[in-house]
Amino acid sequence: MARLRKLMLERLMRYYQFLAELTAGNPVSNVTSAQIAEVLDVDPTQVRKDFRSIGLMGMGRVGFDTCEVCRTIRIVLGFDLDYEAVLVGTGHLGTAMLAYSGFARYGLRIVAAFDSDQDKVGEEIAGYSIKSTMLMKSYVETSGIRLAVLTTPPGASQELTDRLVSAGVTAIWNFSPTRLTVPAGVFVRHEHISVGLSEISHHLKP
Amino acid sequence: MARLRKLMLERLMRYYQFLAELTAGNPVSNVTSAQIAEVLDVDPTQVRKDFRSIGLMGMGRVGFDTCEVCRTIRIVLGFDLDYEAVLVGTGHLGTAMLAYSGFARYGLRIVAAFDSDQDKVGEEIAGYSIKSTMLMKSYVETSGIRLAVLTTPPGASQELTDRLVSAGVTAIWNFSPTRLTVPAGVFVRHEHISVGLSEISHHLKP
Repeated sequence: MARLRKLMLERLMRYYQFLAELTAGNPVSNVTSAQIAEVLDVDPTQVRKDFRSIGLMGMGRVGFDTCEVCRTIRIVLGFDLDYEAVLVGTGHLGTAMLAYSGFARYGLRIVAAFDSDQDKVGEEIAGYSIKSTMLMKSYVETSGIRLAVLTTPPGASQELTDRLVSAGVTAIWNFSPTRLTVPAGVFVRHEHISVGLSEISHHLKP
Repeated sequence: MARLRKLMLERLMRYYQFLAELTAGNPVSNVTSAQIAEVLDVDPTQVRKDFRSIGLMGMGRVGFDTCEVCRTIRIVLGFDLDYEAVLVGTGHLGTAMLAYSGFARYGLRIVAAFDSDQDKVGEEIAGYSIKSTMLMKSYVETSGIRLAVLTTPPGASQELTDRLVSAGVTAIWNFSPTRLTVPAGVFVRHEHISVGLSEISHHLKP
């Protein structure tokens, strides 16, 4: 399958999250594009178009089979292919990520946590014994890890990225507030925690 | 000005963040839509359309005046109108938010932090003395706060939201992994920290 567009991937994720919430402890056999559209504030046509493009067909007014939708999205997004990641930077945000149990349902498993602060090395956080970033390269190489979650201060991010990439990492989930430069073939997803503020402050304007 | 669409607001925010990075300690007088489009992976036509819709006119091949773009986006998004917020839930993520200094540039100032855990009350986190959620309603009412940042465990979020709304809060920045029900007129921005995983896992698929 050709690489899907970023915004479509995000929409699929939101559909999935909504359906997971909807059916939690409460089986719901069908769902319509109108229901999904209303809750997620997108156009129903968009929902149907997205579903069609991943091979999902509705059953007229009955809508879509909830289980089939969830299963298909999991396959398309690759949630059933477990992938391991290292986390780098065990400050407050890094700690929050280590303690969060919700990533497992998307196939993400953080297997080790690193920090450059030697005082932190050996400390236990959310069940992880913090390792020194001096050992990061060999750890990543040996275990064949391809994904790194970066929760480092901005000043350190680029250098750590370079080391991760040279060790074989091909995808970086970047939570540090800085843009990274990577060679072609390496994928960076840059999360801007402040993006949501655009909508909020615009809304609060008198 | 009519309320702008969510996705356009987010794009404006990303343009602004890029230009702020670009010009940090290094004045750049002009920027072209092509430059912005390339870095942010959007269409140059989209950039020009967004700029035009907030009254920004390019100067042919010279592009746009960087300062003017930044100033205009700040006005449109309301960053120069300082707004105060309370934060509720001082776990790892809440602590990360309290410690992060980057929100000030968008006009957001967290003025108080609350927690339901009585053992935490009185504790100091990032310069905030944690207050009990029992005092939250009267604090919000008295100080006329309209925005709350919610970093609570999912089970507690709805009840705390109800109390915040009854105290006069009209906007909630929700980081708790649960959907909230609010009366008409109250704005919720729900951040799904996992949304980015859709793109990453799709990318890592063999």
